[in-house]
Amino acid sequence: MKVKLPGIETFPNQFQGYTIRIEIPEYTAVCPKTGLPDFGTILLEYQPVKQVLELKSLKGYVLAYRNVGIFYENAVNRMLKDFVAAAHPKWCQVTGEFNTRGGMHSTITAQYRNPPKSR
Amino acid sequence: MKVKLPGIETFPNQFQGYTIRIEIPEYTAVCPKTGLPDFGTILLEYQPVKQVLELKSLKGYVLAYRNVGIFYENAVNRMLKDFVAAAHPKWCQVTGEFNTRGGMHSTITAQYRNPPKSR
Amino acid sequence: MKVKLPGIETFPNQFQGYTIRIEIPEYTAVCPKTGLPDFGTILLEYQPVKQVLELKSLKGYVLAYRNVGIFYENAVNRMLKDFVAAAHPKWCQVTGEFNTRGGMHSTITAQYRNPPKSR
Amino acid sequence: MKVKLPGIETFPNQFQGYTIRIEIPEYTAVCPKTGLPDFGTILLEYQPVKQVLELKSLKGYVLAYRNVGIFYENAVNRMLKDFVAAAHPKWCQVTGEFNTRGGMHSTITAQYRNPPKSR
Amino acid sequence: MKVKLPGIETFPNQFQGYTIRIEIPEYTAVCPKTGLPDFGTILLEYQPVKQVLELKSLKGYVLAYRNVGIFYENAVNRMLKDFVAAAHPKWCQVTGEFNTRGGMHSTITAQYRNPPKSR
Amino acid sequence: MKVKLPGIETFPNQFQGYTIRIEIPEYTAVCPKTGLPDFGTILLEYQPVKQVLELKSLKGYVLAYRNVGIFYENAVNRMLKDFVAAAHPKWCQVTGEFNTRGGMHSTITAQYRNPPKSR
Amino acid sequence: MKVKLPGIETFPNQFQGYTIRIEIPEYTAVCPKTGLPDFGTILLEYQPVKQVLELKSLKGYVLAYRNVGIFYENAVNRMLKDFVAAAHPKWCQVTGEFNTRGGMHSTITAQYRNPPKSR
Amino acid sequence: MKVKLPGIETFPNQFQGYTIRIEIPEYTAVCPKTGLPDFGTILLEYQPVKQVLELKSLKGYVLAYRNVGIFYENAVNRMLKDFVAAAHPKWCQVTGEFNTRGGMHSTITAQYRNPPKSR
Amino acid sequence: MKVKLPGIETFPNQFQGYTIRIEIPEYTAVCPKTGLPDFGTILLEYQPVKQVLELKSLKGYVLAYRNVGIFYENAVNRMLKDFVAAAHPKWCQVTGEFNTRGGMHSTITAQYRNPPKSR
Amino acid sequence: MKVKLPGIETFPNQFQGYTIRIEIPEYTAVCPKTGLPDFGTILLEYQPVKQVLELKSLKGYVLAYRNVGIFYENAVNRMLKDFVAAAHPKWCQVTGEFNTRGGMHSTITAQYRNPPKSR
Repeated sequence: MKVKLPGIETFPNQFQGYTIRIEIPEYTAVCPKTGLPDFGTILLEYQPVKQVLELKSLKGYVLAYRNVGIFYENAVNRMLKDFVAAAHPKWCQVTGEFNTRGGMHSTITAQYRNPPKSR
Repeated sequence: MKVKLPGIETFPNQFQGYTIRIEIPEYTAVCPKTGLPDFGTILLEYQPVKQVLELKSLKGYVLAYRNVGIFYENAVNRMLKDFVAAAHPKWCQVTGEFNTRGGMHSTITAQYRNPPKSR
Repeated sequence: MKVKLPGIETFPNQFQGYTIRIEIPEYTAVCPKTGLPDFGTILLEYQPVKQVLELKSLKGYVLAYRNVGIFYENAVNRMLKDFVAAAHPKWCQVTGEFNTRGGMHSTITAQYRNPPKSR
Repeated sequence: MKVKLPGIETFPNQFQGYTIRIEIPEYTAVCPKTGLPDFGTILLEYQPVKQVLELKSLKGYVLAYRNVGIFYENAVNRMLKDFVAAAHPKWCQVTGEFNTRGGMHSTITAQYRNPPKSR
Repeated sequence: MKVKLPGIETFPNQFQGYTIRIEIPEYTAVCPKTGLPDFGTILLEYQPVKQVLELKSLKGYVLAYRNVGIFYENAVNRMLKDFVAAAHPKWCQVTGEFNTRGGMHSTITAQYRNPPKSR
Repeated sequence: MKVKLPGIETFPNQFQGYTIRIEIPEYTAVCPKTGLPDFGTILLEYQPVKQVLELKSLKGYVLAYRNVGIFYENAVNRMLKDFVAAAHPKWCQVTGEFNTRGGMHSTITAQYRNPPKSR
Repeated sequence: MKVKLPGIETFPNQFQGYTIRIEIPEYTAVCPKTGLPDFGTILLEYQPVKQVLELKSLKGYVLAYRNVGIFYENAVNRMLKDFVAAAHPKWCQVTGEFNTRGGMHSTITAQYRNPPKSR
Repeated sequence: MKVKLPGIETFPNQFQGYTIRIEIPEYTAVCPKTGLPDFGTILLEYQPVKQVLELKSLKGYVLAYRNVGIFYENAVNRMLKDFVAAAHPKWCQVTGEFNTRGGMHSTITAQYRNPPKSR
Repeated sequence: MKVKLPGIETFPNQFQGYTIRIEIPEYTAVCPKTGLPDFGTILLEYQPVKQVLELKSLKGYVLAYRNVGIFYENAVNRMLKDFVAAAHPKWCQVTGEFNTRGGMHSTITAQYRNPPKSR
Repeated sequence: MKVKLPGIETFPNQFQGYTIRIEIPEYTAVCPKTGLPDFGTILLEYQPVKQVLELKSLKGYVLAYRNVGIFYENAVNRMLKDFVAAAHPKWCQVTGEFNTRGGMHSTITAQYRNPPKSR
């Protein structure tokens, strides 16, 4: 988890009480054990308060994992931590759905505060 | 948000306790940053009280975004505001699901009062 | 709403605490504004008490809209009223999902008493 | 409902707090009105207590409807009654989804005690 | 249930409040009655506390059922017991969805403590 | 076949060697035997020479079948004849795919001269 | 093959050079070996010359297999023979796609003269 | 057809005997009759000889139709002409599949020389 | 290829000029390199002459690969050889579509004489 | 095209007249213009003569593109050349289907000798 990643820029939020959902299907990183690439889809959902994550900067952040050796659990929890630190949202949820490896298909879901059930 | 858009006409509602859901898959506007067109699907859901949004007028309203430069968050929240101002519904929800840009697929959801969960 | 429609027959119900769901994908009527035909799917759900709607008679009732000029909202709410009057169910819900017109796809949902959420 | 159907065998249950869901897509019976065959899918869900329905015997039970004249509502409620009598489950739900007849597609759902909503 | 299966290794968990979902579509065992192979998909969901199930070891565990004679209910409940014993999770759910046999398609779901409904 | 239908207008064609394919999913007519409505999708494909079928007029032509009693085979062959008479195409093919009736799903395909196989 | 089946009626054909395709998804018969029911979809395609198969009569013919013990190959080839004898078509093809039995999914295709490849 | 559109740049081709297929799902123009926007997907397929169409420039070319009033047939044939003029391919095919208008879904296909059938 | 497999029984064929297609989705064997199981779907298509492959015996033959170490190419070509030896068909084709391994999805197709293209 | 890539190993082929199809959905490289990653699926089809491409070595070859700057056309044609040089097949076809970029979805297909049409 000592991985150095670029910061994520934000812009001021103008509305309240709405949610943002961003699906990023081109996530790739490297498995620290085998050195082989992992692929997956990252799903970010949050309710902004004062700041909105800027999309181009968010893309740069996700691209920076390309040659990083990191496990599934660490990647998803690290993203959650970085998104929360950048945007200070009311709540946030990050889901990583990873391509099948060894006949097993993993999905990791981490949350910052409880997302409302009625989404 | 100083964008000038046509008004939306309504007609008197004759029933109570029912909901209306309108999917508009041909939304397009212009990205204010790049000048390139954005595309998406707008989903409007509401419970009418005294007025129902007139469909032809609603279509004209959505068409008016075609050459307007507006961000995703602003478009969805602006529509919510305009739909509520026109129809004074019991509750209203607007969802904008936008085509992939830069490998990222965004969905914005804004609500006026809480839609019931049992929908 | 002064439209004359055939009655719907029923037969005595023999069981309690169960639900009936009927999907009728061949609904068609005429738009009162343009005179052009509308098409859609009607979904009827209810919990019978003493009477069950007879299917052949129900079909005749829905067929009778074929050359009637009626708006979406009116059709769905009228059906709900007629189904409730015929069967006196514990609860009833009618959903009309109509084919795209002018690039817009409408769904109207009307309820008599609250359907249980666990359906 | 004076139809004679074979009994359903059970075997002793070894675990608690789990659910069994069996989908049987090859149900067929005869419509008592028209004499024409009906087709459908039966979905059985239950939480076993002391007994589990034996699958081969369950299959024989469902096959026995093949040349029986029985309405949708009766078939689903009769199955529920027979499954409950055989297995004495904590709860049970039977759903019959029947093939389109006369342009109408019927689904009947009957329950013995309330299934938990978190299934 | 006297079947000997390999142990499942774990590694220390570094985060709290997140869930892991692993889909294993290549489960196969042998039916104790007929001697013929069964096939299915195992879905494991849990919230780790101090330990995370190691994927390669988990794969070896599931592979070990290949030539074991075991019924559906026993396989799912046994897996739940072994996963809980290895990882001591906050909650755990195992679902086995088995290929159609004799025109019937079975799904068994077993839980250790209640998974939250908002998953 | 003594049915009176509106003419189909055309406009002058400006290009050669291209094909036009029009799918019309809202066809409806009446079964002459039962008096009940039929529904279906009409697929028209042709290579224009000097004239192109005008879409609004084509729509009016298809709408005119709504209350006409006509069999599947007659409807498809009649349309082919009328389309060829209006546009004098190089080749033309009309396919009618009709909704299931009595558990049978019919598709009728009629051709004027041979369409090229490489379409 | 000594099975007695009802005749199939025809009506005079009025057009030439077109094809008819009928999908019958509710075929069922009995396996002569096990006595258990078989299910499948029959697909009939032909080019009529002087006679067209009458649909209601065709339905009665297919229904008559319900309690007949007959193998897949025999059913498909027998149908082909009977359809050809009734309609004397230019060409005819019958395909039977049968539900999975013992983990194997069979499709049988028989032809009377060669259907054109450009269908 | 007096519409002024930007040129399409090319770069030198380095290989022979291969094909390029580009799907452009965000085409939009304006209907010259109604003034309302049309939407569709353009599919371009060709075999390059000395030049390859440059993608960014191709995108700019297609974007330029946004506020142009042009009929379906004209748009597809004009694109074919412009693509051929820019790249001088061995063969080229342009297909425009347009969103449903008035319940009719049109597809126009134009070719420059015959594409091989084995594609 | 020195693998010992059970013979496949046949029964006398009663018709000519028809084809049989059998899809077997539960193939499994062992990778000779890694010792890990392989999974896949076998598709057998042939035109019988004097003999038809008996289904139960065919199933036993495919089941016998379960604990055999064999590569994809060898399995498909061996099956082709054994099917041809048992049934002496006019033509035969065997396709093995194997589950993804190492991010690669393999399909092997082997033929005995040329299957007709018009299938 | 001066890119250095690892060689692909082969093993001796034991059969004739069959084809191999390998789908590799996790291709990624870098766009030489923008420096941003490209993603896509590579489909390799060939008929082996004396040598078969070894799968693990093939995987290593495709992985080697991960940080290489290369255009779509060059990647597909280069792979074709390298596969042909390694395996000397009777024929070979390589298709690259690349993820949408700038609203355009490209597919490149290159062939070494003509693949048979009856595949």
